[in-house]
Amino acid sequence: AAEGAGHVAFSCADECHVEGKTFHYGASIPIAKALAAEVLLAYEMNGAALTPEHGAPLRLVVPGYAGVRSPKWLHTITVQDAPSDNPIQADDYKLFPPHVTKETADPTKGITINGLPLNSAICEPAPHARLSAGAATVRGYATATDRAVARVDVSQDGGRTWSQAELEDHSGGPWSWTFWHAMLDLPKGEHELAVRAWDDAGQTQPALPDDTWNYKGYLSAAWHRVSVLVE
Amino acid sequence: AAEGAGHVAFSCADECHVEGKTFHYGASIPIAKALAAEVLLAYEMNGAALTPEHGAPLRLVVPGYAGVRSPKWLHTITVQDAPSDNPIQADDYKLFPPHVTKETADPTKGITINGLPLNSAICEPAPHARLSAGAATVRGYATATDRAVARVDVSQDGGRTWSQAELEDHSGGPWSWTFWHAMLDLPKGEHELAVRAWDDAGQTQPALPDDTWNYKGYLSAAWHRVSVLVE
Repeated sequence: AAEGAGHVAFSCADECHVEGKTFHYGASIPIAKALAAEVLLAYEMNGAALTPEHGAPLRLVVPGYAGVRSPKWLHTITVQDAPSDNPIQADDYKLFPPHVTKETADPTKGITINGLPLNSAICEPAPHARLSAGAATVRGYATATDRAVARVDVSQDGGRTWSQAELEDHSGGPWSWTFWHAMLDLPKGEHELAVRAWDDAGQTQPALPDDTWNYKGYLSAAWHRVSVLVE
Repeated sequence: AAEGAGHVAFSCADECHVEGKTFHYGASIPIAKALAAEVLLAYEMNGAALTPEHGAPLRLVVPGYAGVRSPKWLHTITVQDAPSDNPIQADDYKLFPPHVTKETADPTKGITINGLPLNSAICEPAPHARLSAGAATVRGYATATDRAVARVDVSQDGGRTWSQAELEDHSGGPWSWTFWHAMLDLPKGEHELAVRAWDDAGQTQPALPDDTWNYKGYLSAAWHRVSVLVE
């Protein structure tokens, strides 16, 4: 890499048509991330050749980063000083503070979205499920990207009280999903289930989407809530 | 290191007297952290020999971890399979879920507190300061331990609206404090200033201490709030 090179840029075979402009898809990542062990140039998956839908013949895979930084159908790789000037990199996927609007947004000032926040979700029961009173199993996943999921809390009253979920296959650590389940005892009535994860630095998720509001709606990772009716 | 060795334990010269027991202070850290570039065995500081108050002749410094894992007056270093069985390591500094109480706490089940969450604080103005109406400078620090501080938001109305602080000396990155300042325009009246930081994975701090409550009070890193009176 040339002295001062701080970014690896990727240009792709597919054409984008955005607001009257035509360009090839492109993105870049910091060179330190590009050199990390978890980042792959993939030509096969699960022992079979990559399919075109997955980006054949060559796709970048950047665990822990937003999907926009894992481009498919790679054509050119360039090591360079500055981030890619492709509109996908230069204009899109920027995190703005809450007071910035579509009218006042300056893409050169937004934070480039690379890493993703701690997140968790309830997969079972489904929203608005009708359940029978008594024991109910709640299942879902959590992910802490470059960190490990240290704990998952589940609530049956919208976050006023919490119990601790059981982590499954906890050895996964960074870059993986951690599956969890919890047994609740649900009386008749309407209940708001909620989940929040903790990473191994003691950080947890915000309670409300309002806490992380931005006009583009990015990185919303507040407690996931699912309302159920128990009959 | 022996095969399977996962921890590095440290035993110290000072004596602890806790609940009728007498023992030497001790702690351990995972071997992966012990081998990381930021972890130091320190015998001097700023070019001068370490003073006894700072742990002379030898002190462990573990950036990003709670202070309890940076023991002073080191006596013995042991590479071993399990964490230290010293009461400081085995019983103390564990993070429990909110439903666990002093009576029900089982130290073998709490999360060992190593890494520290994202945090920020307002250092100026002081709590309950009396200010003149108009421009007011707010200053403070933020820290994201192993991550970089990506943005700091300041509020003059308790978190209903936010403006973006200016980051100073932002090159610091991991293991360092990021200083920030913001200019507010404060009308007469009582105001609740608040600050929250964002790390480079788009994670931010919880709004309220209630969101991270545990009976020991550990890792409370909610928005810092300072009330001022503007006359």
